[in-house]
Formats: sequence, C-alpha cells, structure tokens
Amino acid sequence: MRLGWERVRWFVFGERLPTARAIHERLPKSLALPVFASDAISSSAYATEEIVLALVVAGSAALGYSIGVAAAICLLFAVVAVSYRQTVLAYSSGGGAYTVARENLGTMAGLVAAGALLTDYVLTVAVSIAAGVAAIISAVPSLRQERVVLCILCIAVITVANLRGARESGKLFAGPVYLFVGVCLLMIGVGGVRLLVHGVETARPLMPTEPMPAIGILLLLRAFASGCAALTGIEAISNGVPAFRPPESRNAAATLLWMAGICILLFAGITALAQGYHLIPDSRGPETLLSMLGRAVFGSGFLYAVLQAATAGILILAANTSFADFPRLSSILARDGFAPHQLANLGDRLVFSNGILLLGVFSSVLIAIFRGHTHALIPLYAVGVFLSFTLSQTGMVIHWRRLRTPRWRLKAAVNGFGAMVTATVLVVVASAKFIHGAWIVLLLVPLVVMAFLRIASHYRRLAAALSLEGYQAPRTVRHTVLLLVPGVHRGVVQALAYAKTIATDCQAVFVEIDPRDTGKIQQQWQGLKTGVPLTVLKSPWRSLTEPIIRYIRTIKTERKVDAVTVIVPEFVTTRWWHKLLHNQAGLLLKFALMFEPGVVVTNVRYRPEA
Amino acid sequence: MRLGWERVRWFVFGERLPTARAIHERLPKSLALPVFASDAISSSAYATEEIVLALVVAGSAALGYSIGVAAAICLLFAVVAVSYRQTVLAYSSGGGAYTVARENLGTMAGLVAAGALLTDYVLTVAVSIAAGVAAIISAVPSLRQERVVLCILCIAVITVANLRGARESGKLFAGPVYLFVGVCLLMIGVGGVRLLVHGVETARPLMPTEPMPAIGILLLLRAFASGCAALTGIEAISNGVPAFRPPESRNAAATLLWMAGICILLFAGITALAQGYHLIPDSRGPETLLSMLGRAVFGSGFLYAVLQAATAGILILAANTSFADFPRLSSILARDGFAPHQLANLGDRLVFSNGILLLGVFSSVLIAIFRGHTHALIPLYAVGVFLSFTLSQTGMVIHWRRLRTPRWRLKAAVNGFGAMVTATVLVVVASAKFIHGAWIVLLLVPLVVMAFLRIASHYRRLAAALSLEGYQAPRTVRHTVLLLVPGVHRGVVQALAYAKTIATDCQAVFVEIDPRDTGKIQQQWQGLKTGVPLTVLKSPWRSLTEPIIRYIRTIKTERKVDAVTVIVPEFVTTRWWHKLLHNQAGLLLKFALMFEPGVVVTNVRYRPEA
Repeated sequence: MRLGWERVRWFVFGERLPTARAIHERLPKSLALPVFASDAISSSAYATEEIVLALVVAGSAALGYSIGVAAAICLLFAVVAVSYRQTVLAYSSGGGAYTVARENLGTMAGLVAAGALLTDYVLTVAVSIAAGVAAIISAVPSLRQERVVLCILCIAVITVANLRGARESGKLFAGPVYLFVGVCLLMIGVGGVRLLVHGVETARPLMPTEPMPAIGILLLLRAFASGCAALTGIEAISNGVPAFRPPESRNAAATLLWMAGICILLFAGITALAQGYHLIPDSRGPETLLSMLGRAVFGSGFLYAVLQAATAGILILAANTSFADFPRLSSILARDGFAPHQLANLGDRLVFSNGILLLGVFSSVLIAIFRGHTHALIPLYAVGVFLSFTLSQTGMVIHWRRLRTPRWRLKAAVNGFGAMVTATVLVVVASAKFIHGAWIVLLLVPLVVMAFLRIASHYRRLAAALSLEGYQAPRTVRHTVLLLVPGVHRGVVQALAYAKTIATDCQAVFVEIDPRDTGKIQQQWQGLKTGVPLTVLKSPWRSLTEPIIRYIRTIKTERKVDAVTVIVPEFVTTRWWHKLLHNQAGLLLKFALMFEPGVVVTNVRYRPEA
Repeated sequence: MRLGWERVRWFVFGERLPTARAIHERLPKSLALPVFASDAISSSAYATEEIVLALVVAGSAALGYSIGVAAAICLLFAVVAVSYRQTVLAYSSGGGAYTVARENLGTMAGLVAAGALLTDYVLTVAVSIAAGVAAIISAVPSLRQERVVLCILCIAVITVANLRGARESGKLFAGPVYLFVGVCLLMIGVGGVRLLVHGVETARPLMPTEPMPAIGILLLLRAFASGCAALTGIEAISNGVPAFRPPESRNAAATLLWMAGICILLFAGITALAQGYHLIPDSRGPETLLSMLGRAVFGSGFLYAVLQAATAGILILAANTSFADFPRLSSILARDGFAPHQLANLGDRLVFSNGILLLGVFSSVLIAIFRGHTHALIPLYAVGVFLSFTLSQTGMVIHWRRLRTPRWRLKAAVNGFGAMVTATVLVVVASAKFIHGAWIVLLLVPLVVMAFLRIASHYRRLAAALSLEGYQAPRTVRHTVLLLVPGVHRGVVQALAYAKTIATDCQAVFVEIDPRDTGKIQQQWQGLKTGVPLTVLKSPWRSLTEPIIRYIRTIKTERKVDAVTVIVPEFVTTRWWHKLLHNQAGLLLKFALMFEPGVVVTNVRYRPEA
C-alpha cells in the first residue's frame, strides 16, 4: 500500500528504518574519515597558497619563510588536534566546542561557540559549493549562465544523500576524498624524489637565489593567520562522536589523529614542494598554486586532470562535513532547549532530517543572494572557527583544573597553549578582515545567541505554565454545543447525532449571509423534528465568524457556560480539486476562535458516497 | 479594535459595506458608460487601422473602399447593438450571451458562450494592459526593462480599484474615457471642418488620385473581418444589467445606445478623416494611424499629447470592462452550479471579490508567460467575441419565436440577420487566423466547458448524496474518547477534563517514539490519579499517526464502537514564531485521519499564562 508521496519518498530516501537499528547505522572509521574530514583535508588545497600570497608582498625572496610559517602551522595543527583528541576522549556524547565551553565556562560561552559554529557551517556549505562549481565552470565555460542553478543542484544532491542516512552518505563521499588524498600523496612523493635525485634544475627556476630579506613580525603573523585556513574543519570529529561505532570515543580519537596526520602531511608536503619548485602564484590569475604544482610534477596529462577533478570533488564535499555536523549540533541545542524541539527529531532514516533540510535551505538562500559568487564570504568563516577553538580549548583548561586527573597540569598546559595561539589568531584575523566582512560574523553571532536565549526562555516559561505543581484541575460544570448549520442535509444530520452524543445541551445556529435563504432553512429544519432549536444569527457584513463569536460570548456570560463546543460539519472531498469547490468555513472559524477561551472547534466530517 | 491586517484592509479597500446597502452601490448611467464601454470605445483606437492595413495590400488606390467597409461595419455595429438592446430589455438579471444561449439553445450552447466570454475577458485584460504599457514605454524608453513589472502593477491597481467596489471604480475610470471621447470628437470636428473649408490641400497629399481598382470579394471580406475588432466589448453592458440603478433594463438599454452611438461616430469619423487626409499607416513602423491623424489635425502640440495620453489611458482601462464582467458572469455560473460556489460570494465591498482576484491572477500569469509581448493574443479574442455574438443572437431568434410578442417577426429577423453576419465573420476570422493562434481558443473553450460540466456533476452528485429524501439518521450508540498524551502537564489535564465532559468512556494514549521516555510518563500519569487508563502505543518507525490509526481500527472492531473522538491537546502560542517551536501534531493527525470513517479529531487548546 505504498502510494503517491510514499512511493516517491521511498525511492528518493530509501526504506525507513526502525529506531532499534540506530546502532547499526554507526560509521566505521574508514567511512567516518571522509565524512568528517573532507572539510579539513580540502583546506590543504588552498592553505599553502594563502601563506605564499601573504609573504610575496615583501618580495619573492621572502618566500623562503614559507617553510618556517608552515612548520609553525603544522605545530599548531598538531597541538589543536591533540587538544581535540583529549576533548573527544573526555566528551563521548559529542557537542564539541559547545559542550566543552558550556560545561566549563558557562552557558553564555557555550552558546557563543554554538552560534559561531552554526553560522560557520552555513558559510562553509555556501563557500565550498560555490568554489567547487567555479572549478567545474572553469573547465566547461558554457555552464557559466547556470552557476546558481548548479550550486543549488549540488546542495540538493548532498541534502538528499544526507537524508538517506549517515552510512550511505559516507559511502557516496569516500571515493573523492580518498582519491584527493591519494593523488596528492603521489604528487608529493614523485615531486620529492625528483627534487632529491635531480635537484632544483628539473623544475622551472622562477626565482633567482638571493639572501632572505629581513621582514617584520607583523607580516609573518599575517602569513601565519592566512595559513591557518588549513585548520578549518578540524573540530568536525569532536562534534560527531556519537556517529562512530562503539567504542565511540576511542574510534573518534583514532580517526582524529589519522585526519591530523593526513592534513599535516599534505600541507607540509605541498608547501615544501612549492618552495622546492620556486612557484609563485598570481593572485589575479586563474591558476591555483596546487594546479601549478600538479602541472610541474605530472605535466598536463591524465594525472593532472585527476588532481583537478579530485580537487573540485573534495571542495564540494567539504560541504558534507557541515551536513554531518550542523544537524547534530542543532539537535544537541534542541535537546538543551535552545533550539526548536523539532531539530531533535530522528527522521525516517535515523538522521536529524529537519537540521539537514534547514542547512540546505539556508545555504541555498545564501548562494542565491550572492548569485554564486561567495569569495567575499571566505574570510568570514575563519573568525567563527577560531572563536570556537579558543572557547573550546579554554574550556578544556578549566576541565583539567576541575578534574585533576593524572598529568592534568601537562594537559592543561597543552590546551592553554592552544587557546592562547588560537586567541591570537582570532584577534589577528578579526582585525585584519574587519572591514572585509568579519563584522558580519561579529554581528551575526550575538543575534544567533539572542535567538537561542529567547527560545530557551519560551520553553522555560511554557514548562512553568504547564507545571502541575500546586495546580487545581478545572471542573467543567456546564458544557454546551453549537452546531453550525450551513444548509439542511445528511452531513448536518450526522453532525447533529454526534452533537447529541457529546452533550445534552445542544443548539443549532444558522448565520444569515443572504436574508432570502433564511425562511427556507428554518422550514427545512422544522421538518427534521430534531428537538434542537435553530437560532438565526444576522450577519449584515456577510462575515461567518463574527456573529458566532458574538453569540458565544453572549451565552457564556448569560447562561454561565464554561465550555462551548462549536461543531462544523465538513465534507471530505475525494479529489484535490473538489476542495476548491467548497468554502473552508471550518478552517476560518478555527482560526477566528483561536484566542477565545473555553471554546473547542470540532469538525465532523461527512463523506458523501458520490 | 482595528488591528494589523484589518487596518491594512480598511486602508486599501475602504470601509466594508452591509448587504442592505447593495442597492446604493448601483451605477448611474453617467458612470456605467465608462465602466462598461471602455473596451468597445477603445476599439476605435485601432479598428480603422486594421481595415486600411488589410486593403493596402491591393495597392494604395484600394483604400477608397475603406469608407464602404467602414459603413458596413457601422451597420453591423448598429444591428448588433439593436439586437443587444432587445436582449437587455428581455433579460434584466444580466448574463448576456450565456443566459440567452442557455435559455433558448440549451445548456451546452450557454456554456460554450460562457467559456468563450471568460477566456476573452482574461485575454482582453492581458492584451489591453500590455498595449497600454507599450504606449507608456514608447514615451519613456528607459522603462523598457520593467515591462512585466509595469503590466502587473497596472493589473494590481485595477484589481484593488475593483475590490473597492463598482462605484469607486466607475469614478476612477470616468475621466480617461470621457477625455478620450472628447479629444477624438474634437479632432473629428476640427479635421472635418478644415477638410470642408480648405479641401484636401491642407492635408499632406500622400496618394495620387487614380481610379479605384477592382478588388476581389475575399479581400473585402478580410478587411471587413479585420475591422470587426471595432465590435469587441459591445456585449459588456448586457452582462452587467444588475449593476445599473433601477429601472435596470431601461437604463442599461439607454447606455447601450449611447455607447453604440459614440463608437459608430468615432469609428466612422476616424475612418472618413483618415481617407480624407489620405493617410497610410506603416504596418512595421511605430506610429499608429490615430497618432498620424492627431498630428495631421492638431500638429505635434499639446492637444496631440492629450490624444496620445488618453489613448494609452483608455487601452489600459479597457481591461476594466473585463473586471466588471468576468466576476459577474462567473458569479452567475457559480449560482447555476457550473463554477465554484465561492465565486458567488459578495465581498466586504459588495463586489464579487473572488472573481476579481481570479481575473487579476490569470491575466498576470498570462502577461508573465508572454513577458508583456501579447500582440500574438490579439487575433485570439476576436474568435471568442464572435462565437458568443452568434450564440446570443441565434438564441434571441428562438426567444422571439417562443414568446411571439408583438412584432416578433421583425425582431427575430433583426437578430437572425445579426447572427448570420456574425457567424460569417466568425468563420472568416477563425479560418484566416487559425494558424496564428485561433486554434488555441478552439482548444481552450471546450476544455473550459468540460471543467464547467465536471464541476456541475460534482455539485449535483453531492446534492444527491446529501439529500435527506428517504434517509434514516444514524444513531450513535457507542462513543469513545482517546486523549493523546504528549506529556503530563496542565494542558493535558484540561483536555482530560473536557474528554470526561463529552463521554463516559475515555482512555489516554501515549505514542512511544523514544522508549526511554515511557517509564517517566507512566509514572507521572499514575501520579495524577485520573481514573482513566493510559495505553502505550509502540512506534518503531517514530511515526505519530500510524500507531493511533491502527489502535482506532482495533477498538472499533473489537469493542464495537461507532464513533471515536481523538482529543489532541494543543498550545495557543501568542507570537507567530512560537508556532515554529512546537510540533504540529494536531494538524498531522487531522490530515492522517481525514478518510477514517467515524473518527472526529478535536483540538483542545491550552493557553499558557506565560
């Protein structure tokens, strides 16, 4: 009996799954890695370029510092990864920065981290998809006109894949991620061996060897900050611990270390190779540093094409990390009462469907507003990332101080060092990029936090208002039924039978829109001999609802009635277009009586045999 | 207590009017003329040009026939007007072609006429508005990009004016119509006097005087058919009789003759003047014949500008005739059961609001589809006009034969002659324009008629199914109440009190989405000591509705229950965004139980004091 919408749902989203199967939907490490790490790994595609571009303003000789800066970032990456590993082991229920900051630094800090992360996830989807589509359009320029459509199509595909469930989306996304890692490692290996064997001569010597210039600390900091783009996405695993197979924490920690290793290896290898080949990217040109490197190592043949395709693929899939994390974080917020409860509902396929849909909609809107040109959004999300890093790691310091587990001083020192560095990066990025858009995030995060607080206050007040503590249940003493009579027919007779069943005190009311109808209705009603009186309510303005509301108020005060049930007879139409042929009186009346205390509107449906 | 939407409604649409005031909203003749005649009068702006363009293909000397063709059309106009005058006097309740054809030729003929007219009204709005906006854009070319927006804006303004009520829209539209008539008459007067006094020499002699060539009858017929565009809109008054002040028929008949007189005078005058001035329009050029004539008579000064502005104005207002007629005809169809009943509802301002809105939406969609370039639609609507003319006048022949009133033979002959001529024109137009789009109308009208018939069959079968003839009212013997318990709180306690009021047989049900919640709910329920048992329904697929439907079916068969009331406790949220924070369980359940016989879903609303 799978009909219409059910059949479509089944085809697109797959067989729905019982709650008991939740444990089987968990991800093994080999699939969790591509699901959670695609964002972080994809950063390797552009982080080196960011450093080089920041340094090159001081002259091409300054590029010699790039190895040093990259080393510092690798160190930072390792420190943050170790810190997050400690978090993953300490917090097995997920939540990452939000949970850690909330437990150790208080609710506000937690909500700030959550607001920053949610904002980031939306930005990440928009930016990654737009970048991936830009790569496709560079290859097939005839698609240029369809940029926005392509972006939204990509988002739709990823949304559906995620609605099908975590396991399937892991399978779908594993290919491109592993391909990108593989082809990059191959490039680093081949290029490195060539450099060792043949020396720099094999590469195109673009840069004369001159002594490295003395450059300012500020420039180095800026280069460092730019390169920190490599760290975006590192927190993904800490939010997604519950999606791992048990033992969740240990598996997540292992996956985190694998991810960190891969990222550091790719980032360091690409930076060293670029330095070895003396490559300088042109900030205004169309070619990326990674593409230059690929051509230098592989030539312009098949392997170069694979590299470019894999880069485009992983950039689009970086969005998938957000699709794994946004719904999970918002479900945790919903459980804690800071976000709409519906975000905590498990869908047919045991994923947080509402969160997935919300992210798809938000990012599509962002893409549509910016018409697919989202480069301006890139600096925005570094701010959010480092804000949540800082809060999370500061929280961990408090955590260790509180628990005083073995070696807590060392652990606290590691986290504290990380917090200090990320706080510095946060300040540098936020001030350097303030007028380029960082102000948007600094405005948006407080707004999101305010929304969290208002939602929480609504749920809290509702819970108080619903509390049974000291509550005296009302006793309904007098109950009366008003039967709305639109005309005299079988449907009304059935509704009258129901009305007599639920109350002894019934009366019928007819709203007189056209005075010429009244006589006939009254006559027909008397012919029925129901024993129930018919009251005619005049309606000089042809409104159905107003006379009824007035009449209800009158009988409630005059006859001291506590509860009034208004019965609206209604046809059940078997075809959708039949609905258009009838007035939606029941709906209108329901809406109008929404705020009338002590009134219940009941539709009694009649299904004509025709 | 006018708040929000009410205040907006009042500002845009004006004070709402009581039914008793309907008689005061009737139109005096001076306002009825612009309301109903703008379409017909606006035809004078282009009918002459159509004749001249059809004749000029046989050489400029053939233009000498234009006076003869115009005379024939004037005669036809007079005949059709006299025929319609007889209709208006015979049918005072309005309905025009539809009523006449239905009463005399049968339902199908009436519906064909109605289908043709409704289609025409939509086409008229789209074509007139697009033509008027094109005139504006010719004057202000910078608006070219906004063509569709301007068109839809015009439609919106006319829609709102009509929703404000017939009287106001009469006032709003009187100005441009009388201005157009006045300036055209002035032009004909001034131009005619000049021709008489100074002879043709004053005008630019564009054409050498040569003997008129002998041309075929087919060409003359085509010129005649093209000029018949002058007759579009003539039927408007016959549909709108009930909008006139009493005595409706006599006033409408007088207005009809006035309109016919004005149209014939303008059309004949413009044609004669164009002939006298030897004007030949360029079918590919931007200038219309009327504009040439205006410049020839007035020069390019102030009066010429007034003429052009009035032309643009009356073209846009020609749409208003459709806004007066479409809602009225569709309300008559609704009363007869061929269109949705809602189209017969009188709105706040005593106009058929739903019909006005429908016409506004349909024509806007048409404009949007054709992106404001609706010239291709112009031949379409001549087909519909002459189809309804022919049906209406044939119907009148039967009418006179049936009634045999004094001089019925003469009257029948007049109508019969009109019917023959319009039928000929219909065949000529439909065959000449078949591939240019007439086929669309010939396809659309049967589809619309089919829709009428299906709607009528639905209402008829519904009436039969609702008939109380030989119907034995059901007796509800066993009634049980299921109270849906989403959690244990005040709202549920109030709903329980209501449940106990309406039935002695109550039970509470809890749908177990997450098994971890069940124990707590059961414990809390027992703590209430309600005396009502709580049944837990398992839901392995996390669906709320499925277990309830299954349970209802079970108790209906096992316990022989006739009627089940499902009570869903619901919060009334005081702010719109609070709605987003709650599951819409009641709505979902209502929808799911729509087709379940013997089930009533009742929402008991609880308003938290918070």
